[in-house]
Amino acid sequence: MTVCRPRVITLLTDFGNQDAYVGVMKGVIAGINPFANIVDICHSVPPQDIFSGAYLLYTSYKYFPCKTIHVAVVDPGVGSRRDIVCVETKDYFFLVPDNGLLSFIIQNEKPKSIFRITNNKYFLPSPSNTFHGRDVFAPVAAHLSLGVKPQQLGIKINQLEQMDIPTPISKKTGQVEGQIIYIDRFGNLITNITQEYLVKGAGGQKSEVGSKKQDAFKKTSKEKILSQLCTMETTIGKKKILGLSKTYTDIQAGEPLALIGSAGFLEVSINQGNAQKYFRVDRGNKIRVEMGSY
Amino acid sequence: MTVCRPRVITLLTDFGNQDAYVGVMKGVIAGINPFANIVDICHSVPPQDIFSGAYLLYTSYKYFPCKTIHVAVVDPGVGSRRDIVCVETKDYFFLVPDNGLLSFIIQNEKPKSIFRITNNKYFLPSPSNTFHGRDVFAPVAAHLSLGVKPQQLGIKINQLEQMDIPTPISKKTGQVEGQIIYIDRFGNLITNITQEYLVKGAGGQKSEVGSKKQDAFKKTSKEKILSQLCTMETTIGKKKILGLSKTYTDIQAGEPLALIGSAGFLEVSINQGNAQKYFRVDRGNKIRVEMGSY
Amino acid sequence: MTVCRPRVITLLTDFGNQDAYVGVMKGVIAGINPFANIVDICHSVPPQDIFSGAYLLYTSYKYFPCKTIHVAVVDPGVGSRRDIVCVETKDYFFLVPDNGLLSFIIQNEKPKSIFRITNNKYFLPSPSNTFHGRDVFAPVAAHLSLGVKPQQLGIKINQLEQMDIPTPISKKTGQVEGQIIYIDRFGNLITNITQEYLVKGAGGQKSEVGSKKQDAFKKTSKEKILSQLCTMETTIGKKKILGLSKTYTDIQAGEPLALIGSAGFLEVSINQGNAQKYFRVDRGNKIRVEMGSY
Repeated sequence: MTVCRPRVITLLTDFGNQDAYVGVMKGVIAGINPFANIVDICHSVPPQDIFSGAYLLYTSYKYFPCKTIHVAVVDPGVGSRRDIVCVETKDYFFLVPDNGLLSFIIQNEKPKSIFRITNNKYFLPSPSNTFHGRDVFAPVAAHLSLGVKPQQLGIKINQLEQMDIPTPISKKTGQVEGQIIYIDRFGNLITNITQEYLVKGAGGQKSEVGSKKQDAFKKTSKEKILSQLCTMETTIGKKKILGLSKTYTDIQAGEPLALIGSAGFLEVSINQGNAQKYFRVDRGNKIRVEMGSY
Repeated sequence: MTVCRPRVITLLTDFGNQDAYVGVMKGVIAGINPFANIVDICHSVPPQDIFSGAYLLYTSYKYFPCKTIHVAVVDPGVGSRRDIVCVETKDYFFLVPDNGLLSFIIQNEKPKSIFRITNNKYFLPSPSNTFHGRDVFAPVAAHLSLGVKPQQLGIKINQLEQMDIPTPISKKTGQVEGQIIYIDRFGNLITNITQEYLVKGAGGQKSEVGSKKQDAFKKTSKEKILSQLCTMETTIGKKKILGLSKTYTDIQAGEPLALIGSAGFLEVSINQGNAQKYFRVDRGNKIRVEMGSY
Repeated sequence: MTVCRPRVITLLTDFGNQDAYVGVMKGVIAGINPFANIVDICHSVPPQDIFSGAYLLYTSYKYFPCKTIHVAVVDPGVGSRRDIVCVETKDYFFLVPDNGLLSFIIQNEKPKSIFRITNNKYFLPSPSNTFHGRDVFAPVAAHLSLGVKPQQLGIKINQLEQMDIPTPISKKTGQVEGQIIYIDRFGNLITNITQEYLVKGAGGQKSEVGSKKQDAFKKTSKEKILSQLCTMETTIGKKKILGLSKTYTDIQAGEPLALIGSAGFLEVSINQGNAQKYFRVDRGNKIRVEMGSY
């Protein structure tokens, strides 16, 4: 006899923790696959905020074991004609309403297949129009975890709905304008400026014609370039932050700093403080970076 | 060797998520039955709000697998003479303080047995007077999940305490007055008017003496009658909502609607908005339905 | 074949529930040990509040099964030179930043060993400087749960950082001045005055020279002494509470009371109310006890 590794099913919703909605989904899953390992990613996505849901899913999905089934339900269109889809990528399954929730992720990896879920054999009987989390997502996820194949769930389609994700804008060399795309519990201001973007920006300035120099540049490690960014300047509102810190504690407690956060984005923080309160900013506010004088 | 299905133990409390109370209960359970599958239903029941606890338990219990042990601790009388009881129904076990927490559920199904829990062999040693969740409920639930029988826990009793559950009032044919009994995270206003009540009310108007007509009525599907309710009118405060929607998105974003929610109750909502804020109402506020002109 | 008891890994953090940080840690653990039984103790520790984290860990750790791995991440110094340590006690493993998080616990039990964690073989590749919960704590805990020994994780050290824990002050016999060290969801005011301290204080007054009397005293049970405390007087602000209650319901609803709470500390509460709001106090406020006239 072999004891199989329990399959992980993750849940990310805007259902909150004050009602029983999430618990009910887990009950349905446990009834179908009692060995499923259900892990909460987050249920505090602001109601109907697909963008935040997409961001949180993007920053977490790849830390789960291969073949994890990620179920994300931020679904203002529940009960309407929007589709529910099962998306398979190289390592994961995603079960989501087709409303843009995977927009960040599919920038990173191409889906292997997309199926519109129509086979109500895998739903609860008489599904409601208002709680597909319980009546469709949970039972379908549980069946997937037992080995049902995506093609058994419905009809193959070719394209997913996508959300506009704001990209940083570079008006002149060495300058980038980004914006705050997420603010976490600690008040850290996470921007859409990626580490790669900064590295490219900084490296770009230095690159010259000529194969030898180019080659030399290729060998310059990302870390080296990032360390060159110590003279960069981040502007938020009328305030300026000099340099790129490595950790929150590079700076005195209570002082602002910029660093590359754990999801790979440029982030403005206050050591042991709350940058959102300090700067009085919100999602969508602009942040400028000058990768100037080095 | 057979690997048994892990038994599900659910937890529903007013302990909140800011302290360690819930985690401690799980520790106690894991110490007694390491294979128990503990599922949180909800821990954000407002402190001492037995009514909300009863509502949440009612809307979730039957979505769990057979033989699930539902532990609910909303217990303002902890340490006093109130009883702790183990209630067995056809499919489930409930472990609750005997204070009305099962009032909604026993409207639905008759208990097979009720035992007052007195056998401290299944408690933690020297139980406190203030945290029976840890010292009584958790260990007893864990022992039940290992196969201990309810009759081993204490003394058989015949009756449970019950809470008054407000029922809708119908002053004249085709009119119902209900009230808001629960408001969820999205601000949806859930009333005590059930789908059955509406169907009966609407059907009732139409039924006449004579067996053939009666029979014909019986065959009228619930769906058909519900669809007739499209001309009903729901009044909340001074505002009126016409018709019964099927989904939130039947109506423009920002507009109010009435529908049968996922727990089978009439519910007033705002598509992509918050009906509690919109109508400035609270639990207990009246809602009138006129099933008039069709 | 034997199915091993799944090892429990507990998580206590200040990461909150609004982001995906906790979910990501669970993903990392499940990827390394899919059979680990992960239990949340609490994630709502106020940001960077090591003291509250230490209190919550202290009140919960010993309710978990033997060999549980307790992971606590309240870590304002993340990425700086503070150490991460694995502390083994008689029954448990603790994985914590070395910043005082174990201060309450090591008053109770001496560590068997302390290892500074340096072996990055057990970390995620390229650990970030801002999210050691994901990159260090989670994978190290998972490896420990698979049987890796603390000595494989790093370098043995002898001492832990400690936080000042305020102790009650007794200026004259029968009087104690303590302070509020924690306030829970219900608004219960938990002080640093332990049951033992009260028993000693009350008993101390009665003890006299002479072996027989001393012996007799030894036999006086803790319960008996506590019952003598029924005439004690607790002063908070300008208000006085007479006696020591056994349960919240000893007193009328809405009235204040003092009792020994479930963690063994003197606690001021309101029956079915919120003592923090009633007394308008906060952590650090003084509470005086007079064990006077009996």
